[in-house]
Amino acid sequence: MKHQDYMALAIKLANAAEGQTSPNPQVGAVLVKEGEIMGMGAHLKAGEPHAEVHAIRMAGEKANGATLYVTLEPCSHFGKTPPCSNLVIESGIKKVFVASVDPNPLVGGAGIKKMREAGIEVEVGLLEEEAIALNQVFFHYISTGLPYVTLKSATSLDGKIATVTGESKWITGEEARKDVHQFRHTHDAILVGVNTVIKDNPSLTTRLEAGGKNPIRVILDSHLRAPLEARVFNDDSAETIIVTGSDVEPEKEKQYKEKGIEIIKLETEKVGIKEMLKKLGERGITSLYVEGGAEVHGSFLREKAFQRVITYIAPKLIGGRDAPSAYGGDGIAHLNETVPLKIIGVKQIGQDIRIIAEPV
Amino acid sequence: MKHQDYMALAIKLANAAEGQTSPNPQVGAVLVKEGEIMGMGAHLKAGEPHAEVHAIRMAGEKANGATLYVTLEPCSHFGKTPPCSNLVIESGIKKVFVASVDPNPLVGGAGIKKMREAGIEVEVGLLEEEAIALNQVFFHYISTGLPYVTLKSATSLDGKIATVTGESKWITGEEARKDVHQFRHTHDAILVGVNTVIKDNPSLTTRLEAGGKNPIRVILDSHLRAPLEARVFNDDSAETIIVTGSDVEPEKEKQYKEKGIEIIKLETEKVGIKEMLKKLGERGITSLYVEGGAEVHGSFLREKAFQRVITYIAPKLIGGRDAPSAYGGDGIAHLNETVPLKIIGVKQIGQDIRIIAEPV
Repeated sequence: MKHQDYMALAIKLANAAEGQTSPNPQVGAVLVKEGEIMGMGAHLKAGEPHAEVHAIRMAGEKANGATLYVTLEPCSHFGKTPPCSNLVIESGIKKVFVASVDPNPLVGGAGIKKMREAGIEVEVGLLEEEAIALNQVFFHYISTGLPYVTLKSATSLDGKIATVTGESKWITGEEARKDVHQFRHTHDAILVGVNTVIKDNPSLTTRLEAGGKNPIRVILDSHLRAPLEARVFNDDSAETIIVTGSDVEPEKEKQYKEKGIEIIKLETEKVGIKEMLKKLGERGITSLYVEGGAEVHGSFLREKAFQRVITYIAPKLIGGRDAPSAYGGDGIAHLNETVPLKIIGVKQIGQDIRIIAEPV
Repeated sequence: MKHQDYMALAIKLANAAEGQTSPNPQVGAVLVKEGEIMGMGAHLKAGEPHAEVHAIRMAGEKANGATLYVTLEPCSHFGKTPPCSNLVIESGIKKVFVASVDPNPLVGGAGIKKMREAGIEVEVGLLEEEAIALNQVFFHYISTGLPYVTLKSATSLDGKIATVTGESKWITGEEARKDVHQFRHTHDAILVGVNTVIKDNPSLTTRLEAGGKNPIRVILDSHLRAPLEARVFNDDSAETIIVTGSDVEPEKEKQYKEKGIEIIKLETEKVGIKEMLKKLGERGITSLYVEGGAEVHGSFLREKAFQRVITYIAPKLIGGRDAPSAYGGDGIAHLNETVPLKIIGVKQIGQDIRIIAEPV
């Protein structure tokens, strides 16, 4: 095996923990000595050991003189666990390959410096791009303090999310809907507008064959119009947060709070997307999966407040000049005002097509 | 090489003549003797020799005792050229592989029968599916008398064909637009509604690097509203037909005719899609490329009058609840009224994605 193969394995290990490490990054580590793997590990959950610790523990004394392949720079500060760079030094590792430098301002190259000062040979940048892709959410959150926002929609081939009469169940097939649940699992929080709660009364939980983590449910509701009997307020499967405006009756607010619902109240009458994202970021939410409806998507689009767009397209034509499409709002006047996107992936999922795109 | 390889080659030869054989099918032929290719040919243009004729001429006397691989059953009737099955028999060919049987009621197995009666061994069905796919248009036209209809649209990722202010140039990129010209080249006729003529004043010609055939231009204009000075009425690069309704002023009609424009007048006040297709079929148009606008697409959708849907999707978000999408009209009320489609192909073309789908 080549250096690159060991690092690819470390990335694979890291990737396996997708959706379960927040607010921490996904990290993988492989420990090699004389061409044999001595230890492997991944960071599995915040508060639990980092990837390097698992790998070094697995190797035991054999870590002495070994080479470490780690997808993210070992930390140098005391967080919930002691600094990994210390452990790397103490264990007698003689060479370290680091895929990407930690963007966390508390670390920022300090781990690498520390190891080098202790006489360890450190090489940075092996499979860097892949390692960064692994932690897009984490890197975004760390550098902006805002959640990484994914706008999801499911439309017909002609871009409709419902017929003129409002019928929308279901446009895409079962496999695409399962895929949506996988994305719910990997996000810290899911967001819908109050109209979706009123119209569809969704539970917004993750339903996957082998189980899955339920995201925190965020309801965008400027005037507290969401019915108290809605599903999202009456099951305990996940936390629910209402983000509301300044002009709401305290009495009404109290009723939600009595049901254990958290209320984030902004300073403006109408909820501003950017202000909301700031509050959600402060609340520790690193990733937000926005399921709509159309006016909500329109608002995120207007504010250019998104990092990823996932569109499922069903092989159907609905038609109708008044049938709604996925992005409402007032829209832009001129084509040069569009947010240019780059297609990241196109995949057939069951009968449907999934397109993932990111702002350029 | 195996039998299948020779037939695949014959299909490739046939495919090379895409767009230039109408109203005839695309056909390819390969002649093989003792493992060596003696002749190859494709039907290139209506009125000119059939594929078998080219292949047999190339082989000369070596056709005697050879095996013929032909994508479509050799004809048995006198059309613009003498029957190919006669030539096959006279040339001394001893075995024929036929991929697909001719759906033309004037032939229908008669060519195969004739060859068998002359003692030639005939095998039918090798790569049949591929051979039928080659001539979808021809097979459809022969069996229905109607043109094969392709509905084309180009939208943003959120299904919009223009901004709220009507700006639509350009949503897709240059390469997608080139691809559109390739499709114009392979169709007998192109159709747009009168509103497109008024708004965009397009020329509807084929502009390709190495040249291309211009399709006949068909303008759907129930009340003869298209301006006489429009480009489509004032250049000689292609024929133009107006399909209009019963309630138009003879004086107006005369003005178009004086410009050499053909007028197809239907019996109803408003042009009915099915009635129009019948007339275009009678006029010898085997394939129709419908470029919109939205109300025209909506009409074809309502009548379920299409065989293929080509959608180009650009990596942009336009948004706006009032921004138009590709299929207008009144639309369906319920999701179970959609025409279910099957995805035939998804391809990245430049920055855009092209989805080709067909009714199931």
